[in-house]
Amino acid sequence: MNTPLDDQGGPLSGLRILELGHFIAAPFCTRVLADLGADVIKVEPPGRGDPVRSWGIIPEGETASVWWSVHGRNKRSITADLKKPEGIALVKRLIAEVDAVVENFKPGQLASWGLGPRDMTAVNPDVIVVQVSGYGQTGPGHNRAAFGVIGEAVGGLRHLTGYPPEVSELPPVRTGISIGDSVAGLYGAIGLLAALFEKGKGRGTPGRRIDVALTESILSLLEGCLPEYGATGAVRQPTGSTLPTNAPSNAYPTADGRWFLIAANSNALFRRLCGAMGRPELADDPRYADNPSRVKHAAELDAAISHWTTGLTLDEVAAQVEAADVPCSRIYDIADIAADPQFLDRGMVRRVADPRLGEVLHPGVVPAMTGGPAGGVRWAGPDVGAHTDEVLAELLGMAPDEIDALKKEGVL
Amino acid sequence: MNTPLDDQGGPLSGLRILELGHFIAAPFCTRVLADLGADVIKVEPPGRGDPVRSWGIIPEGETASVWWSVHGRNKRSITADLKKPEGIALVKRLIAEVDAVVENFKPGQLASWGLGPRDMTAVNPDVIVVQVSGYGQTGPGHNRAAFGVIGEAVGGLRHLTGYPPEVSELPPVRTGISIGDSVAGLYGAIGLLAALFEKGKGRGTPGRRIDVALTESILSLLEGCLPEYGATGAVRQPTGSTLPTNAPSNAYPTADGRWFLIAANSNALFRRLCGAMGRPELADDPRYADNPSRVKHAAELDAAISHWTTGLTLDEVAAQVEAADVPCSRIYDIADIAADPQFLDRGMVRRVADPRLGEVLHPGVVPAMTGGPAGGVRWAGPDVGAHTDEVLAELLGMAPDEIDALKKEGVL
Repeated sequence: MNTPLDDQGGPLSGLRILELGHFIAAPFCTRVLADLGADVIKVEPPGRGDPVRSWGIIPEGETASVWWSVHGRNKRSITADLKKPEGIALVKRLIAEVDAVVENFKPGQLASWGLGPRDMTAVNPDVIVVQVSGYGQTGPGHNRAAFGVIGEAVGGLRHLTGYPPEVSELPPVRTGISIGDSVAGLYGAIGLLAALFEKGKGRGTPGRRIDVALTESILSLLEGCLPEYGATGAVRQPTGSTLPTNAPSNAYPTADGRWFLIAANSNALFRRLCGAMGRPELADDPRYADNPSRVKHAAELDAAISHWTTGLTLDEVAAQVEAADVPCSRIYDIADIAADPQFLDRGMVRRVADPRLGEVLHPGVVPAMTGGPAGGVRWAGPDVGAHTDEVLAELLGMAPDEIDALKKEGVL
Repeated sequence: MNTPLDDQGGPLSGLRILELGHFIAAPFCTRVLADLGADVIKVEPPGRGDPVRSWGIIPEGETASVWWSVHGRNKRSITADLKKPEGIALVKRLIAEVDAVVENFKPGQLASWGLGPRDMTAVNPDVIVVQVSGYGQTGPGHNRAAFGVIGEAVGGLRHLTGYPPEVSELPPVRTGISIGDSVAGLYGAIGLLAALFEKGKGRGTPGRRIDVALTESILSLLEGCLPEYGATGAVRQPTGSTLPTNAPSNAYPTADGRWFLIAANSNALFRRLCGAMGRPELADDPRYADNPSRVKHAAELDAAISHWTTGLTLDEVAAQVEAADVPCSRIYDIADIAADPQFLDRGMVRRVADPRLGEVLHPGVVPAMTGGPAGGVRWAGPDVGAHTDEVLAELLGMAPDEIDALKKEGVL
């Protein structure tokens, strides 16, 4: 697994980050940064490593999940037992050699091991520390246990994602991916890079910390919900498959029993959709004259559009709505994505050689950067500790027998 | 509205960005950067400005939405008619004075007005250009129209967010907020800051562009879906209110007709939950011995947990699960959020003076940064063109009579 770093690099080459992460949020943060060229050194417990290595599909005869191939890509994995003083001492020596640390232990956990932010700045005053947690590092509820699902619910997303109680008795739906963790990870990356910008301007202060809460990361995305509540007392409610603020935008049934999404929520788009439907008069109907009117009469409008779509197959509807240049789509599953010409053309579905699994499909690097090195997939998620020897020799100048001794003691 | 910039600033103070954005994605990107101290100059069409100004609740007697108070906060608004050559000329002069441009016009639109990335680098070789679009700036499908709803569906999120067809006949749910736009905006911010890091290292190349697609931003979050499909042909399907890879994690019904989320999806957490339920023997049941086993028997396990929760009120369940330190929560609506002691303690629900609306509730700055200036809410979303005179004088040295002449011609 000791593939050499791609010389082409990316915008973040030269940036070195130590990851004390597990599960999703912190490792996702560092995946994004590693994709763009950062050297991410991930510290894992000796033996089983990050629990995500056992999440999702594990092929027959394998010990690690397929997900790991993406989640761990471009990172160097080293082992250290953080429950042993020698493990902590080793990690401190590494912290002295990096630009930033990204961690997502429960608040206070690392400090209890002598690895809190103050311990880190004691060995490296310039180190930037990103701490991702459920509720944040401070406040009366900071030490409650949390996972993404909880952060999404407390941040207000879960309540809004579902059908109103009068339409369905089922509970609100979980957004089908670990969105709270991912968004927190993205905010962590932004904070880290913002602190680097500040440092580059000569304004960096010792002890710069980025305190990312899952709950707050989600709350920050809630559009106008909070100010609307503050100004009018309105509590936004779930609206199922539609938008609460714009119409028409919904999933419409087709003759072949499928759903087709149409988002004709501007005056010009709506007029074009009416043309495609052969109902140009609807665009002049006062009920649908502007967005506020269409939102008010969304149920009638959706009925009229559904009446049209149910008479046609999905392919027929798609052809007509696309010809009118109105935003629309089938609902893609992962097989649709893997076959999509646009994703393929942009390198967003790429074949990566994984020494463990053979050729695997990976999503490409986001964001796509042009006009210079773009980053890329240098290697797939490595085995636990695949880079221990390499990293300890390179960063700390440790000799092979020193490293072997620590392995025998179970520190690595 | 010409509140002076808060002297305290933030990590990004000294960074100047021109926003040629509308709707959600690009303006959300710049909101995050402005919250952290960047000087964001938003260019709006004279008159009505950004369409979001009319989205969502508009209080009686007001002309702009409450959402705008947050969406436009900390930015300086200037007007320029991009359909007039004088407007384009003016914007080019401004581009010469900024570090970066963030735009989300349909691909090719700005270039058709003489304001493509090449036109921008012609006047400012160092400028970093962030372009947010539905499908990206290249490829066979790049010029299709898109909105967030479409990007979320093509990126694979919509398919996964709903109940399986055998459970509900309703279409997949829309994640209840503009998640595709927001995530694309966050990736845009990361790309912009990554390009600044590169420039700070002396490696910046003229013409650095960040090409963010909504579809790709979502695809990048899909956990192991793509590699699992590539390796095994498995197409991940929606799982309603549960997690597909971990158990138990679900919404459980309570005696008072509500839902309570419990995420006991690790061996230790599950054991503690079993204790709270008074069913310690379940933790030793071979069906529930580890995560893969629990996922396999999730339906039986959820039935056992539901049996327990339906005998108690939500408050009773909450007290017992919290006492066991298992991640759990009610499903918060915005009123719960506004009253939550943890959010209040961390300044995540703050009262902001809005000259238009009076005191309004705003979400705080994410990520929270300590050890230096943290950014903040310097002012609420300004009126269209509130800073035109100030910005043109400050950046371009224009005299009041020059500015007035352009206003009379309808350029501003």
